[in-house]
Amino acid sequence: MTDHRIAPDLVAAHNQSRAASQAADYQALGEHLSRRGIDIETVTRKVSAFHVAVPSWGVGTGGTRFARFPGIGEPRGIFDKLADCAVINELTRATPGVSLHIPWDKADPAELLAAAEAYGLHFDAMNSNTFSDAEGQALSYKFGSLSHADAGTRAQAVEHNLDCIEIGHAIGSKALTVWVGDGSNFPGQSHFTRSFERYLASMGDIYAALPDDWRLFSEHKMYEPAFYSTVVQDWGTSYLIASTLGPKAQCLVDLGHHAPNVNIEMIVARLTQFGKLGGFHFNDSKYGDDDLDAGSVDPYRLFLVFNELVDAEHHGIKDFDPAHMIDQSHNVTDPIESLISSANEIRRAYAQALLVDREALDGYQDDNDALMASDTLKRAFRTDVETILAEARRRDGGAIDPIGAYRASGYRKRIGAERPAARAGGGGIV
Amino acid sequence: MTDHRIAPDLVAAHNQSRAASQAADYQALGEHLSRRGIDIETVTRKVSAFHVAVPSWGVGTGGTRFARFPGIGEPRGIFDKLADCAVINELTRATPGVSLHIPWDKADPAELLAAAEAYGLHFDAMNSNTFSDAEGQALSYKFGSLSHADAGTRAQAVEHNLDCIEIGHAIGSKALTVWVGDGSNFPGQSHFTRSFERYLASMGDIYAALPDDWRLFSEHKMYEPAFYSTVVQDWGTSYLIASTLGPKAQCLVDLGHHAPNVNIEMIVARLTQFGKLGGFHFNDSKYGDDDLDAGSVDPYRLFLVFNELVDAEHHGIKDFDPAHMIDQSHNVTDPIESLISSANEIRRAYAQALLVDREALDGYQDDNDALMASDTLKRAFRTDVETILAEARRRDGGAIDPIGAYRASGYRKRIGAERPAARAGGGGIV
Amino acid sequence: MTDHRIAPDLVAAHNQSRAASQAADYQALGEHLSRRGIDIETVTRKVSAFHVAVPSWGVGTGGTRFARFPGIGEPRGIFDKLADCAVINELTRATPGVSLHIPWDKADPAELLAAAEAYGLHFDAMNSNTFSDAEGQALSYKFGSLSHADAGTRAQAVEHNLDCIEIGHAIGSKALTVWVGDGSNFPGQSHFTRSFERYLASMGDIYAALPDDWRLFSEHKMYEPAFYSTVVQDWGTSYLIASTLGPKAQCLVDLGHHAPNVNIEMIVARLTQFGKLGGFHFNDSKYGDDDLDAGSVDPYRLFLVFNELVDAEHHGIKDFDPAHMIDQSHNVTDPIESLISSANEIRRAYAQALLVDREALDGYQDDNDALMASDTLKRAFRTDVETILAEARRRDGGAIDPIGAYRASGYRKRIGAERPAARAGGGGIV
Amino acid sequence: MTDHRIAPDLVAAHNQSRAASQAADYQALGEHLSRRGIDIETVTRKVSAFHVAVPSWGVGTGGTRFARFPGIGEPRGIFDKLADCAVINELTRATPGVSLHIPWDKADPAELLAAAEAYGLHFDAMNSNTFSDAEGQALSYKFGSLSHADAGTRAQAVEHNLDCIEIGHAIGSKALTVWVGDGSNFPGQSHFTRSFERYLASMGDIYAALPDDWRLFSEHKMYEPAFYSTVVQDWGTSYLIASTLGPKAQCLVDLGHHAPNVNIEMIVARLTQFGKLGGFHFNDSKYGDDDLDAGSVDPYRLFLVFNELVDAEHHGIKDFDPAHMIDQSHNVTDPIESLISSANEIRRAYAQALLVDREALDGYQDDNDALMASDTLKRAFRTDVETILAEARRRDGGAIDPIGAYRASGYRKRIGAERPAARAGGGGIV
Repeated sequence: MTDHRIAPDLVAAHNQSRAASQAADYQALGEHLSRRGIDIETVTRKVSAFHVAVPSWGVGTGGTRFARFPGIGEPRGIFDKLADCAVINELTRATPGVSLHIPWDKADPAELLAAAEAYGLHFDAMNSNTFSDAEGQALSYKFGSLSHADAGTRAQAVEHNLDCIEIGHAIGSKALTVWVGDGSNFPGQSHFTRSFERYLASMGDIYAALPDDWRLFSEHKMYEPAFYSTVVQDWGTSYLIASTLGPKAQCLVDLGHHAPNVNIEMIVARLTQFGKLGGFHFNDSKYGDDDLDAGSVDPYRLFLVFNELVDAEHHGIKDFDPAHMIDQSHNVTDPIESLISSANEIRRAYAQALLVDREALDGYQDDNDALMASDTLKRAFRTDVETILAEARRRDGGAIDPIGAYRASGYRKRIGAERPAARAGGGGIV
Repeated sequence: MTDHRIAPDLVAAHNQSRAASQAADYQALGEHLSRRGIDIETVTRKVSAFHVAVPSWGVGTGGTRFARFPGIGEPRGIFDKLADCAVINELTRATPGVSLHIPWDKADPAELLAAAEAYGLHFDAMNSNTFSDAEGQALSYKFGSLSHADAGTRAQAVEHNLDCIEIGHAIGSKALTVWVGDGSNFPGQSHFTRSFERYLASMGDIYAALPDDWRLFSEHKMYEPAFYSTVVQDWGTSYLIASTLGPKAQCLVDLGHHAPNVNIEMIVARLTQFGKLGGFHFNDSKYGDDDLDAGSVDPYRLFLVFNELVDAEHHGIKDFDPAHMIDQSHNVTDPIESLISSANEIRRAYAQALLVDREALDGYQDDNDALMASDTLKRAFRTDVETILAEARRRDGGAIDPIGAYRASGYRKRIGAERPAARAGGGGIV
Repeated sequence: MTDHRIAPDLVAAHNQSRAASQAADYQALGEHLSRRGIDIETVTRKVSAFHVAVPSWGVGTGGTRFARFPGIGEPRGIFDKLADCAVINELTRATPGVSLHIPWDKADPAELLAAAEAYGLHFDAMNSNTFSDAEGQALSYKFGSLSHADAGTRAQAVEHNLDCIEIGHAIGSKALTVWVGDGSNFPGQSHFTRSFERYLASMGDIYAALPDDWRLFSEHKMYEPAFYSTVVQDWGTSYLIASTLGPKAQCLVDLGHHAPNVNIEMIVARLTQFGKLGGFHFNDSKYGDDDLDAGSVDPYRLFLVFNELVDAEHHGIKDFDPAHMIDQSHNVTDPIESLISSANEIRRAYAQALLVDREALDGYQDDNDALMASDTLKRAFRTDVETILAEARRRDGGAIDPIGAYRASGYRKRIGAERPAARAGGGGIV
Repeated sequence: MTDHRIAPDLVAAHNQSRAASQAADYQALGEHLSRRGIDIETVTRKVSAFHVAVPSWGVGTGGTRFARFPGIGEPRGIFDKLADCAVINELTRATPGVSLHIPWDKADPAELLAAAEAYGLHFDAMNSNTFSDAEGQALSYKFGSLSHADAGTRAQAVEHNLDCIEIGHAIGSKALTVWVGDGSNFPGQSHFTRSFERYLASMGDIYAALPDDWRLFSEHKMYEPAFYSTVVQDWGTSYLIASTLGPKAQCLVDLGHHAPNVNIEMIVARLTQFGKLGGFHFNDSKYGDDDLDAGSVDPYRLFLVFNELVDAEHHGIKDFDPAHMIDQSHNVTDPIESLISSANEIRRAYAQALLVDREALDGYQDDNDALMASDTLKRAFRTDVETILAEARRRDGGAIDPIGAYRASGYRKRIGAERPAARAGGGGIV
């Protein structure tokens, strides 16, 4: 039996007060879409079935190198985090999966499974961490981990990843995401080829230990924490990794990890075409790896990514099964609210992409009718699908207005009383 | 009596076939907005009153340095261009103003006025050209114009601008937009300060000749055609120009003229606050000064710009009257279609910005409620206002679906028969 | 009498072993420069007189939001920092000024002065900090400081800046540098104009308290820690601040605080021309505000900045007196070594800029001889002036090879024994 | 017997007047390098053996989409171009190879060979052109070429490339460089995957026709002339092409074709490691594909690229034989001067890279001594190798000061008299 963090009665009452307005909006959109030849129910069902994982670390307040300003009720450990994740899923019904970060979330697997089950959650991809030194760690990652010049340090980093697989195996995860900060801050500091050879060898050791039904995601990033070169700097290198390692290795695309102006949806298409699209870390950004809330800065870009995904589904690409996960840093909002909102935005982009008239689009593309092709995407994008998202939530037991319901629930205040205040820090992520 | 380029009957018949669907959409949105406390009629009236000027050069097919691929029916001169501009306005009722580019559009003022009147058009800001050499020009602009090291070349460029004012004066224009490509391709080629002093002196001469009721717009651009430095490289320099020259000088913001990642809406706010926002060249871009169709790549950015404009209106900023103009290069579309579509996109952003609940937003801003502040903008943006735009067009005599009506009219084919085929060229703009 | 941190005997012995090679190099370069009409001694004297301040926080190991990996012998407080700064100056003779950061460096002014005097140091610009919350601070800067929506928070931030002035006044500083992270992470979160009005009012209060012989530097930055908008986002806004406040207010340029591809040397020229160039934070960067060692990634850019400074001196610009300071984050090097090296790189760029044949350059610029103008700068840049820098150090009592001498001295090991090990942290700056 | 375009006597006299100074510089540097354990003669010999090809189109004045400002004596066709290329090689002795662009350079192979032989030149890689429409071409490339939706257009583009191979075969070329502008200006205009499949099929047809001893270079570019997506947008896609096609297919890196801030030298390392580095188009850039003179904006970046090349040689990478070619647009200089200067800059970077102490560097890299690793590169870079370059030219019969000799020769004036003035155009390349 589910351990509700938000009282179902509260959600029901909240929905009741919005029911008439929601019904009117839903009916009006249904009629409008019907005039466009689209069945709203098909869209709503697909949205309802679409889930995106939340990262355990996302429910804590993030920070920059300059400062971190914690909020009240910061989670004290993985079980507080799971409780907060449960709130998000109860209100959105979009986020039953939680992605753990080791070592921070290390705990007894049985207890993890029990807590998740009680909350109606499960565990998504595992994330290893070799970009900072854990307490008591023998060798430092200051100068790298999987690509470190020192064999002992590399072995330690490999061992940590094997640990992550073992924990994940015990709790039902099916993937390991590897992101390393390895790189250099000065021209000359690292030898590009020797570093990458070492990285590939380390990843080979990890790959060898991967269960048969697991996937290994390599995640590229242009820069930060390394500011001159990064070992896995772009999708080209990530593709080399995945194709060197083997079929269980795929590429993970974090939307904020690219050079300025890069066409990300095209990378998605290329990796899809070559069978190497593993999944996503969703977020938004304006400058660098800003880790802002998904869809908050450039919602059309998010739509264009989903346009590729829906197109791949539409064309029945074989073995196409990208993982969806949010990866954001919530520095100025209540993290629970940001994750609720981001899950909605991701579903919004998906719903909009479902509205694209793909037969018409194919025709415009073949005819080089650029204007109508563009308009076909824009038309889908500008359709206000909020009522579809709300309907999917409502039907699945979530809230028509999840932020409103969350605020009405007093959850944050409640955990603020339960959990001791966190210290403001000099920066960083947790 | 208006010389219709598209038969009113055709538009009427076209609208008739879409009337029921439009009425249903409009009523549904009206009810939805009413539930949000917004009167749709107020919005529709404001949209109807909103106009954006089209550039005479925009109706010709544009190109890059690599190639220009003309379409059929390319305009042979300013009178063909005016005819094409008339089509855009007849269908959108959003673009009665046309902005001329001298020397290309030079013609007898009386004939220009007569043609414009016949089409129901008028003349917007004048644009001088000193970024290329006109046939028979005495001195070359290869190394600059208003900032050229040679006094004679500067004088020639000033004289050309005075010409533009004179022509504009005769045809009812009230502003001169000055954009120069002056700059350098090598570190050391130009002395930054001496060049800028010369530029300021030249602009001072132009300013001195400006009629009292005119404005002088300085337009900044980061790079291209100069690839190391540009004399008016950003809004900071543009502000220095406008404040040095005097109250009739203001800054013009072309959305594609900034460094990657720059927050353009913030520049709009700063110039507004300091009384120097002269106007806009609307377009969209992904990489550089791509001159793509407005709203085609990042529609939320366009909305955020209009959010600033509506906010300034809302707060009753004194003497706030920015000029709105499209400036795009239509390389792969029928230019008339792109201008129709872009005028709609610009109105769309305006309509969405009108839907922002500004009292609520002010409150969220004062309370540092970042999430709800963001959502307040997003909520306005995601409202599908297409039916409002269509209604404004319909009521003003335009087309519910202007692209559809344009294609149905056969206009392009007709002028293709009238006008001789243009030669494919090695590149460039015309 | 100076309290030497590095034994003068060690430096002397070290220099002795390099004396012959240095003499040979110096003589050869002198003869080469003489053939180019340049007197090496004039250059060496100017280099010797050129100083750049080091930041107190620069001697500690920096970090990113992901991690900080401390080295051995991390300074425990301002007095340890001053000791480390003394090492840098003893070996380079280029860095007698130290710039303090309050509250971290707060201490009894008399003790600060005594320590500085003992080390042959003095205090450069003061730096306030309102981008993180100090222990025990009443109101948080989570949502801004000088521009905060709340008057009490703004007052607290102003008060902190007045404190900085007071401390600085007591220890002989003559300037206050204000950099704030104020901004927003979401479109809509902040009202651009109201925020900036509040910022200007707060800065007005600080300006009013400034001693007559002080300067107030406003430092712009495109982004980070705020990732959608920043109140002082670029030099245009910084100029508006400085010109609104008055003649004692000027703009400070940090080389890493700009949008991609921006021509920084041109900003330097504009601020110089309009009397608002206050000074620099030197560093280098490839992606964002990477805070890498000066000249390590793009040494020609550093040269081009100095080319502007030497040009301004050459043309006798009135009241031209920019402050020079290093501002870097040393994440993977011994901070003392990075500061030694960076001071040398900055002097190198200055020395190279002194070699530019300015009369020839003026002529090429007036003749639009882009190739020879470029070559004139490149010729100066490619001259290997290392022997000039070494000679200036040697004559002033520093080391011919300061990194070599530092390593030979065993200083790091010594302080490693004296100072307790710092804890590896979750990220951030200190 | 060589047909000299610049009288050997003139070069000899010119050198004579600089001989003493050159000898003194060369001796001084030799002694300095000797103290660093480097034999100057070894470096000079390697520089002498290093050649870079010039592009036939580079000797004409380039332009932008806004304008092209021709100089005097513009080449009228391929034979004028070869004459100008001869000048460059006679003075630099660095550029015996000329790279042709079809259709512009189409001519009788026997005549081409005869002319080249007379000038002491040979033919480097062939370049096809499907980014603009040639006169009389049946089908337009407005919407693409090798990836066009229409099979006929693709066949025409393939056929053109086969032509290029045939011509190249007749004149001794051994490579075909394929760069296409194919892409889109609007989201939705092209289907990424279908376009790329068509591109791969077309390239497969070309590859099949390649002689056994030829290589096929695919050249990526982020954007321009397409402004939303480009089929071969980055090295990742270029790698997919080369690995799909086979061993004779490799990737060509144009230094100006990347996103802002991208680490290009790392791409060079990755392609080298995976056996797919085909060669380079050298130039420099600050903003986009600016096509500025090599080394004029960021000379250290050019050095870092050569550092990778010399490192690969040093480590004896198998089958490592990248092609070197200049690809620039000379808009404001005499193209001959820019090519002379660029050839020198490229050799300069090579010479500096030869000075890197690779054993020491390896050690610093293995020890994570970032500062000394950086300094090892910087030390090589800051060595003034001009005298080595001059010596290599002098010994091979070129000019100590090739720009000076060129100007003294009066060549430009002479061809200005011979060749009719070109018309200033509306923009573009030729």
